[in-house]
Amino acid sequence: MALIVQKYGGTSVGSLDRIRNVANRIKDLREEGNQVVAVVSAMGGVTDKLIAMATDLNSSPPEREMDVLLSTGEQQSIALVTMALQEMGVEAVSVTGRQAGIITTGSHTRGKIDSIDPAMMQGFLDDGKVIICAGFQGLRNDGMIHTLGRGGSDLTAIAVASALKADVCQILTDVDGVYTSDPRVVKDARKLPEISYDEMLEMASSGTKVMQSRSVEFAKKYGVVFEVRSSLNNNPGTIVKEEHDQMEAVVIRGVSIERSQARVTITGIPDEPGMSATILSCLADAEVNIDMIISNTAHDGLARHSFTMHSNDLGRAQAALKPCIAALSPDSEVITEAGIAKLSCVGIGMRSHSGVAAKMFKALGDAGINIGIITTSEIKVAVTVDEAKIEDAARAVHEVFGLDKAPS
Amino acid sequence: MALIVQKYGGTSVGSLDRIRNVANRIKDLREEGNQVVAVVSAMGGVTDKLIAMATDLNSSPPEREMDVLLSTGEQQSIALVTMALQEMGVEAVSVTGRQAGIITTGSHTRGKIDSIDPAMMQGFLDDGKVIICAGFQGLRNDGMIHTLGRGGSDLTAIAVASALKADVCQILTDVDGVYTSDPRVVKDARKLPEISYDEMLEMASSGTKVMQSRSVEFAKKYGVVFEVRSSLNNNPGTIVKEEHDQMEAVVIRGVSIERSQARVTITGIPDEPGMSATILSCLADAEVNIDMIISNTAHDGLARHSFTMHSNDLGRAQAALKPCIAALSPDSEVITEAGIAKLSCVGIGMRSHSGVAAKMFKALGDAGINIGIITTSEIKVAVTVDEAKIEDAARAVHEVFGLDKAPS
Repeated sequence: MALIVQKYGGTSVGSLDRIRNVANRIKDLREEGNQVVAVVSAMGGVTDKLIAMATDLNSSPPEREMDVLLSTGEQQSIALVTMALQEMGVEAVSVTGRQAGIITTGSHTRGKIDSIDPAMMQGFLDDGKVIICAGFQGLRNDGMIHTLGRGGSDLTAIAVASALKADVCQILTDVDGVYTSDPRVVKDARKLPEISYDEMLEMASSGTKVMQSRSVEFAKKYGVVFEVRSSLNNNPGTIVKEEHDQMEAVVIRGVSIERSQARVTITGIPDEPGMSATILSCLADAEVNIDMIISNTAHDGLARHSFTMHSNDLGRAQAALKPCIAALSPDSEVITEAGIAKLSCVGIGMRSHSGVAAKMFKALGDAGINIGIITTSEIKVAVTVDEAKIEDAARAVHEVFGLDKAPS
Repeated sequence: MALIVQKYGGTSVGSLDRIRNVANRIKDLREEGNQVVAVVSAMGGVTDKLIAMATDLNSSPPEREMDVLLSTGEQQSIALVTMALQEMGVEAVSVTGRQAGIITTGSHTRGKIDSIDPAMMQGFLDDGKVIICAGFQGLRNDGMIHTLGRGGSDLTAIAVASALKADVCQILTDVDGVYTSDPRVVKDARKLPEISYDEMLEMASSGTKVMQSRSVEFAKKYGVVFEVRSSLNNNPGTIVKEEHDQMEAVVIRGVSIERSQARVTITGIPDEPGMSATILSCLADAEVNIDMIISNTAHDGLARHSFTMHSNDLGRAQAALKPCIAALSPDSEVITEAGIAKLSCVGIGMRSHSGVAAKMFKALGDAGINIGIITTSEIKVAVTVDEAKIEDAARAVHEVFGLDKAPS
């Protein structure tokens, strides 16, 4: 008998039939003798409807009240899934975030999990009950209802698995697992049986949007091993866990792509301390999310700063930078380029293998693809290329590292 | 400055425009310098939709989960009304039943309010905030979400008014107040400026369905004076309060009618102890709600029992009585009569005025209306008449007691 924590997203519980399907899956696990805690999201579409009502009534809905409003979506789901299970003869009980003992901190709509007191859940498990737990929510230490923001249900599942010392934690989603690259682009992309937390984090921040980084970071911090798998079939997915020695033998774990990127380059800024900080804070004030940052000095003592961002942010960035740059230097200039994409090679094997960047760049060169910005981290090499070339680039790099073949 | 507790029902918050209307009314009160706590129900229709989903998933939805599910309706309303108020520049904050400190006891879906700890609400009031409080719900002492059943939002408002020692408690509804009789039937029915708790209770149980009895009982127990008034205009409504001396000067406060009644008469039962109890428990087991009860003995030593009930219950009553009666006596018989209605005269003045029944029966006789069963309480005389005659009966009795004229 194992204690299994599962997470079902909004699509998985998006209709009454799908709720019955989820209940059936849980029933099967229970009948195999397992204890089950299922964390569920709001039914697909419910949250959007609630947001539409809120914005009709208030042009800028107060976040405290958004938490009160949106947390009802998950509360409805847990009751409905529990009812479906009871109809099937499975003893089940729902718990809200508060009842699950999830104590949070931070601003409304962007809560962080502070601690979990699993006493009520443990009692239900001891009574032989399946638990259906509301994702995405908790109780703030001041007694307020608190939602956890994007990826909050994944975070709930991982935190609950940690608090209950679960044997298995499964994030059930509409993909089969984590692939070496996007299978829609790279036909021979392969599902990874396992991946390290750090690789998953780099993949997530590089465009492989299986999960939000914060949930993976939480899992890493508390050592929660979890599996990303499909809610539509029973195939094994991808296990995400702390790295082990054999993992390093693989140089590159995967190739991520991120489209719709844009670059802003600022020239003619004096090469003095504090200049980068000034520019970055003016972008932060305008709520522009910066991805890659490159800075260099020209021989004339003037600096050149480049940033990448989502192309949706480009207009806001340009508007914010204009007065900021003009104040720093009359000779400064802002050059923008949209229509680029980012390609990232990720793998902890990079730490012990040299020549990864060279091999990657040669593959791109051989394919006639020009490289824009390059950035590296300990386990990632990322480049920008023309967006029209990103699929060719992904295929070339996937091939040169032999990612279509399982490592022996 | 007064502290005003208001209750808005599901119709009053049934659309976004109506929510804006409620917010405007609250804003006006606030701008007049009052403190306001508004108790709101779920948006009209929301509860029915949730019930439909529940019964689709489970033929007999577990009550604990119904509480989890249905309480989301009010939680959505409070957030939306609060958002609308903030958009209008009114500082407002929502509180769920739990946050309002409403502690409940009893079975799921039929909670009773045990106590209220108004600390959080008092803090918000002290901060100058308008409070929008979820009706119909509380936290059970074991930490479970608990709904209060029918009339639960009225009950919440009265209990909150009591706990906060409010100056005014208003139950806003789709009628203008309590009338001397149904104005659709009796054209010169008059809105009562005030009515005693006991009269309101007798009226409620006699077909004047302004409020559930339990809320009036609660108000009486805790001495909460409240007003029933319209949410659509600003007319004064009816104040419900403890009786005072002047009230007794009025013999009859109002005339209630209740249609679709049926009578069951059982004859040929031996006049022995325990017979009535046996018959009544067999009806209770079949979940038949009995209204009037008449019992008498014939000169042959056999008893005759009559009951009235809603005609919807008649079939169930008949089916349940058949085997029960046969076991008591082979000579017993069950006679049923549908198509009757009940007319009730209510007034605390009856205690000190004699001849009320005589005057009432004479008015009915003069109108050519035959009386079936008669029952009386200290402040009520009720009769059954042919349903086709009920409107004539109401008009005749309303007139004979001069209810169209305000007492001097």
